[in-house]
Amino acid sequence: MRALMIFALVLCQTPIFSQMKTLQERLGYPKETKLLIIHADDIGVAQTENAATIYAMEKGVVNSGSIMVPCPWFPEIAAYAVSHPELDLGVHLVLTSEWKHYKWGPVLHQEVKSLTTDKGFLTDGSVDLSKVAKVEDVEKELRAQIKRAIQFGVDPTHLDSHMGMIFRDAEYVKIYIKLGHEFKIPVMITQQIVDAYESSGIKKMLTEKDVVIDDIYTAATYDYAKGMSKYYTNLLNNLQPGVSTILIHTAYDNDEMKAVTIDHPDWGSAWRQADFDFFTSDVCKKLLETNNIQLITWREMRDKLVR
Amino acid sequence: MRALMIFALVLCQTPIFSQMKTLQERLGYPKETKLLIIHADDIGVAQTENAATIYAMEKGVVNSGSIMVPCPWFPEIAAYAVSHPELDLGVHLVLTSEWKHYKWGPVLHQEVKSLTTDKGFLTDGSVDLSKVAKVEDVEKELRAQIKRAIQFGVDPTHLDSHMGMIFRDAEYVKIYIKLGHEFKIPVMITQQIVDAYESSGIKKMLTEKDVVIDDIYTAATYDYAKGMSKYYTNLLNNLQPGVSTILIHTAYDNDEMKAVTIDHPDWGSAWRQADFDFFTSDVCKKLLETNNIQLITWREMRDKLVR
Repeated sequence: MRALMIFALVLCQTPIFSQMKTLQERLGYPKETKLLIIHADDIGVAQTENAATIYAMEKGVVNSGSIMVPCPWFPEIAAYAVSHPELDLGVHLVLTSEWKHYKWGPVLHQEVKSLTTDKGFLTDGSVDLSKVAKVEDVEKELRAQIKRAIQFGVDPTHLDSHMGMIFRDAEYVKIYIKLGHEFKIPVMITQQIVDAYESSGIKKMLTEKDVVIDDIYTAATYDYAKGMSKYYTNLLNNLQPGVSTILIHTAYDNDEMKAVTIDHPDWGSAWRQADFDFFTSDVCKKLLETNNIQLITWREMRDKLVR
Repeated sequence: MRALMIFALVLCQTPIFSQMKTLQERLGYPKETKLLIIHADDIGVAQTENAATIYAMEKGVVNSGSIMVPCPWFPEIAAYAVSHPELDLGVHLVLTSEWKHYKWGPVLHQEVKSLTTDKGFLTDGSVDLSKVAKVEDVEKELRAQIKRAIQFGVDPTHLDSHMGMIFRDAEYVKIYIKLGHEFKIPVMITQQIVDAYESSGIKKMLTEKDVVIDDIYTAATYDYAKGMSKYYTNLLNNLQPGVSTILIHTAYDNDEMKAVTIDHPDWGSAWRQADFDFFTSDVCKKLLETNNIQLITWREMRDKLVR
């Protein structure tokens, strides 16, 4: 269901303008610096996702995250963001409602009918959106999600894409970059994604003010099967210089999350608890130290490069 | 916030057509029978409300309930209703979104803007709806909630009103009775409510096929302060012949419900746990027996009198 194929784990260190400095150098760090964003996706999806992510940011090493605006617990995390303006929170742009019994619709509801099922929910990710959705509906809805976050007092530091749906279609990637420019917010994108859509002219949309990070890492089913601790330990021990992000999903394995993720162990309740456990552990803190990994926020990149 | 003044605890045994039989007699019971609906409100509002109410229906004495269609956990309870068609489930018609950080909008969204805040949520119950809402929006939205329950496979056995909002305005009561007739579903109403709006012509809308129950009981803040067990025990020990209902709210006092009801102990998380505890207790079962109280469902009344 969550085809994140585009996020292949191949290291790609070529900066977008090869004559230019690396991203870490543009940000004022030496070329050999390993900069990492430890990023919690899916904030706002459920109460437990909010509670666990807040804890993992306050007590653990999670230093960034992004919010799902159409979801039921969005107002709670928005209120928290307002009272904690130092947090690095972006908008996790949503085009799907993927769980079995816990659903949401687009924030524009009936205005963007091509994005929804007959029950008014976003489709579940198994649908090829590019075959059913009007591109203008995608653009309207994504813009409305950003505006709604701002309406609720969130100061988005970045944009990214729930379930990587935006990266499935060149037109969506164009909308994504366009929205980043419109709101002066960096979008999470890699050179690899840009190259994949080279023929669509995406490279031409990017300027020297854009942020193209080096790598996106996220655990897949086979990583979870082998143990999250093993996967993340290996990742941190082998992280290369540049700017990378690890996408995680932090929640407590409780009744609420079990019900949200029913019949779907991948990205399920226990999976999210395992992410929480690792990124609030002393083991993880120690690995960051021993590997000389420096954490960086999207806010720092936004404010140094985009604005 | 939850002014249920209209649900005064005065016993009113006068049948609507005084020359007619009592409701219990029309249903085929002797006049002296004490018939009771133990009714869980707010199903669908949260995952824990669904889980606790299902338990209280399966293992406790709760024999009826009603579903909040605009709420996030509506699809879960609708799926449960489809797989348990014997359950007595109605539509808890919703005109408010009353909690602090956990909100919902009308099912018709932008189509019924007069019912919503600038953020698209239903108002919180402190607003005098009759001053801001278009009556036609109220009717459209309430009809849409019933239709949506049916679209999801629910067979509603009755209608009732979340936070008693419908009982605050004669026009809303008229819509409510009209919708009951349209869908051939009994609406929860008492003689007292009918009398309160006598000048508005509500009595004329009622026919011999309508169900007017004798009493609606629900715990108020001062009952909760003195202890729910005491309140319910007294109520069951003093129940009079006729058809009455007790409106309760069953949920577990967990992180989800604490966050839903934050800053609002009335009808809060511990309150709902207290309701759950009493109506799943052996003490309660025993009280029903010793007081010769018979449980009756809305389905029985619907199928005997309305259809």
